This record gives sequence, structure tokens and C-alpha cells, in this order.
Amino acid sequence: MRLYINDVAVRDGFQIEPRFVPTATKVELVDHLSRTGLHKVEVTSFVSPKLVPALADANDVLAGIERVPGVVYVALVPNIRGVQNAAATTKKPDEVNGVVSASETHNRANINRTHEQSLAELPTMVKVAHDAGMKITMSLSTAFGCPFEGHVAEDMVLRFVEHFHEFGFDGVSIADTTGMANPRQVEELTRKVLERFPAPNETYYTLHFHNTRGMGLANVIAGIAAGVHSFDGSLAGLGGCNFAPGATGNICTEDMVNMLEDMGYDTRVDIAKLIACAQLIPGIVGHEVPGQVMKAGVTMHLHEIPESLRQ
Amino acid sequence: MRLYINDVAVRDGFQIEPRFVPTATKVELVDHLSRTGLHKVEVTSFVSPKLVPALADANDVLAGIERVPGVVYVALVPNIRGVQNAAATTKKPDEVNGVVSASETHNRANINRTHEQSLAELPTMVKVAHDAGMKITMSLSTAFGCPFEGHVAEDMVLRFVEHFHEFGFDGVSIADTTGMANPRQVEELTRKVLERFPAPNETYYTLHFHNTRGMGLANVIAGIAAGVHSFDGSLAGLGGCNFAPGATGNICTEDMVNMLEDMGYDTRVDIAKLIACAQLIPGIVGHEVPGQVMKAGVTMHLHEIPESLRQ
Repeated sequence: MRLYINDVAVRDGFQIEPRFVPTATKVELVDHLSRTGLHKVEVTSFVSPKLVPALADANDVLAGIERVPGVVYVALVPNIRGVQNAAATTKKPDEVNGVVSASETHNRANINRTHEQSLAELPTMVKVAHDAGMKITMSLSTAFGCPFEGHVAEDMVLRFVEHFHEFGFDGVSIADTTGMANPRQVEELTRKVLERFPAPNETYYTLHFHNTRGMGLANVIAGIAAGVHSFDGSLAGLGGCNFAPGATGNICTEDMVNMLEDMGYDTRVDIAKLIACAQLIPGIVGHEVPGQVMKAGVTMHLHEIPESLRQ
Repeated sequence: MRLYINDVAVRDGFQIEPRFVPTATKVELVDHLSRTGLHKVEVTSFVSPKLVPALADANDVLAGIERVPGVVYVALVPNIRGVQNAAATTKKPDEVNGVVSASETHNRANINRTHEQSLAELPTMVKVAHDAGMKITMSLSTAFGCPFEGHVAEDMVLRFVEHFHEFGFDGVSIADTTGMANPRQVEELTRKVLERFPAPNETYYTLHFHNTRGMGLANVIAGIAAGVHSFDGSLAGLGGCNFAPGATGNICTEDMVNMLEDMGYDTRVDIAKLIACAQLIPGIVGHEVPGQVMKAGVTMHLHEIPESLRQ
């Protein structure tokens, strides 16, 4: 079965690093990632440079990277202003990705809008993106739980997905923003979404998991069982959790790819090249990262038989 | 569905710590773990104190701990000598756990025996244990892959399990010693084992996973799907991988319990008490540990709504 793997490290990972990653380093990393077989690479975000100084170089990153045919280059946009800025840049992203939280409290905390305000601007976001020749997808954050409100009603998730369809978005990402999803919940909720609003194509729905409580890769399996083909990860497991110092953030892309390839899925990703990219990360950010396969090697990375056992 | 959770941190975790953990600390930790609702606690091992100095205090640990009714106290035994020593100690473990590797190379590296030599001594191990009033189980290491040989034939696993049944062992643990198993493989192989050699009781089969490549909790779900009810973990994710510096070892017990309880399984484990135990570990070993839930809190650990959003 063909699966589509997207990496968000350059955006979701670097955005919380205290040390600014130089533009040239971001560009170089994206250029490496472009040659690994990934489906999408999220390269930056059009947000206020005051709020997220780490990504203040969005225009330069987009202008600097080499576009490899077949790879979709994505930028996050929190609002209409973000879409407009993405549309106005010299080298536009192929796709912009909006964001709204299924939990109203999280939506207000994250993008300073009520649900009503968010919904009111979504059709314009679609129009501005499409007029500029960019695709636009929507991420539904806190779809499996909210760090403030706790339980998030499935109906709320279904209602948002319905709106995204109506408004003409090109794809929907269902996101477990703070790692609260469990595999049973993922399979049940995702199945409902796909039954109620069938996917027009294999990459319409994406699942975006965090590994905050260690359930990330188990949730990927549950998502596949429910019929999803597209998954986000972050190189080297880069990223963190705003609510828990020391806890991990996004699931690790190369750990996910290693598992899926072992299971016989076709990700089209060259795991050796991806690991080589991951091994650049500790040097770039100056600290340890959660990725496992980059330390242990791929599953079939064998070790020398001890001297004493050899004839 | 009732699931049975066993912790191996005091044995499998402490045995590779470079710093000797004082006997009193081990005893105190076991006494805490005994009150969390765990099914089994693996407290030590009867191995050569020269080879594993970290567990040279097996007799004292077993003499010092308080036995809580309902909890099964386990000691690892690599050979007949180990069973004899366990049988000879003042306060015997309830159960000893032997070990053999499905890969012959790993068996020779780990316990210095060929398969033939291991099989030859197993019936005597059963007899010595039972004569001393102890139960005895067998762990089949490298059942899902060997760090030296790579692929391990399913037939080899099935043949060993058949022997364990014939020899009268009280339980069988199927172990992914270096984190090579993937969820599809776990479900397929475990299903074959259970079909061919049905479990006489719910805790006859245990699955023992490592999280070396991040697949540990996904493998637990696959094991449940195949019909297994008993799982090993290590408090705080303590332990490591002999073959990959920096890589993690056993799956983390409290991360597993948090996931399983979220999914609606009945583990009988008090997750708050278990997390309290896990939080002792960094102080005991003097370094960071891989456990996630101990850092992020349980899934429904909610956070204060930001000041600015409150009326």
C-alpha cells in the first residue's frame, strides 16, 4: 500500500528553538529533504515575525530552496494575512496550510480567534490562495483532546471537517497537537470522518501526531487501519511540547518510515538519506533529539559477531 | 479486557547502570512498585556477580522486600546454577525466569551456550524450580530479529515454544531483545504461536518489547490484537541497548499503562502511583530517562487557561 510521508521539522521543529537557525542552514536542509522521497516538506510559516522570530525569514527560505519536481512545498498560514503574504512572496509555496483548533479555548490561545471568527475568514483564505495559484489545506488542531478543555467532542471535529469540504479546501489534516490521542480513539474518529466525508483522493486526509505520551507510532497504525494514507512527521523528532518541558513533540519521521517500510508499506522514502538528514539536526540545534532510528540504525542494521564466537 | 502489566526496571534497567544502586534503594523501589497494581515485579537476577556486579545483591534484595499478596516476585536465571541459587536463598522469588535466544549466535553471546546445550538443561531447570516451590517461565530472546543474524525464522520460534510447553514451563515470554519487531510481524507471529500452542491461562504468554526504534507501544497493540494479555515494561523506560549508545531499551511501563487505560483496557495499575515511582528514577541513576508520561503527565492532565482568555 502506498503511503505519503510529509516532514514538518523546518517549520514545526525550528519554530520553538531558542537559537535562530540561519536561513542558509534551513535552505540546505530542505534541499537535502527534497531528495529523500518525501511527499511534502513544510518549509516555513507566514506568521508575525514578532510572535515567531525563528521563522521571520519565510520569504528568503522560499526564495533560496531548490524545487524538486514531485515534492510539495508547504507554508503554514494562521490567517488571511498569512495567505496574502504567502501569495505576495517572490517564490510562492505550492501549498499553504491554515490552522484552527477544534477546542475553542485552544483556538483563542493559539490564533487569538473564536470559532466563529475563524470560520468567517476561511472562505476568503481559500479564495486568496487559489487566486494566487496555491493549494490550501486546513489543519484541525486539538482534534483528539485539548490541554485546557480535555475531551473534544467528535461532533465538533466532524462539523469542522464538513466546513472545510464546503469551503473548498484541497486537503484536511487532523492533528493531535499535544499528544492526547490513543490508537482506539484515532481509529474510531478517523473512520467516522472518512465515512461521512469520503476522501476525493489518497492525500486529501493527513494525520498529524505528536509523541508526547509515546503513542505516536501506534496512532499511525490506527490511522492506516481507518483508511488514511498521508502522515506528518518531524525529522529527528525535532520539536517539543509547549505544555511540558522535556516532553517530545511531533512523531519522528524516520522512525515512522522505518516502521512502515518494515511492515511492507511503500513510502517511497529512502531511509538512509532521511537518517543522514536527521543526523544533521543535533549539530544545527545544539542539543539532543528524540529520534531513535538515527541512534540505533534501521531495523536490519546488523552488528559484528563477537570475536570470541568466530572460528 | 483485563491486561497484566509486569515491571522489569529493577533487574533489566539497573543491570546496565554503571553506578551500583544501593540495595536499600532497590528494596524501597520494589516496595513502592508492589503497591501500584502491577502483576509481576522482576526484582533481581541470579547471575555471576563478576559478570553483572549491579545485581550482586540478589539475596539481600529478596530478603529485604515486603511481599504484597497478589504480586508475583520474579528473578531472572540464565542457567541451572541460577535456579539452584534462587532455590537456596532465604526468601525465594515466587517465580524464576530462564532465558534462551531464538538466534543461536545471540544465545552464545548472551549465555555462552549453543541451542543444543540450552535445550539439554531446560528440563532440569524446571525440576529444580518446581522442587523448590517456585514457578518457572522461559523468555525467548531475539524472537523477532537478531542483531547479529538479522532475520529469525518463525519456525525456530515455534519450535522453542513447543519445547517450553513439553518441558512443563509455567509461562513463556516472547522477547524483542533489541527492538527489531514491527507491529505486523508481532501480530502474525504471535497469532501463530497462540493458535499452535493455546495458552492454558491468560498470563501464560507475555510479550516483552524494546522501544529501540520507537515501535514498542505499537507492538503492544499488535500483541493484544493477537490475543496476548500480559506485557513487560520498565519503569521510566529505564534500560538501554547494548548495541546502540543513546538508544532506548525496554518500553516504558507507565507510558504503556497510560495508553492502555486511555483505550479502555483494565490494567488494575494506579497510574499516579506508578508515575510517582518513575519520578524517583532520575535521582537514583543520576541521568535523564526516556519515559514520556512522567514528563507530560497523564493524557487528561489539563493546563490552566491562559490569563488573557479568562473573563
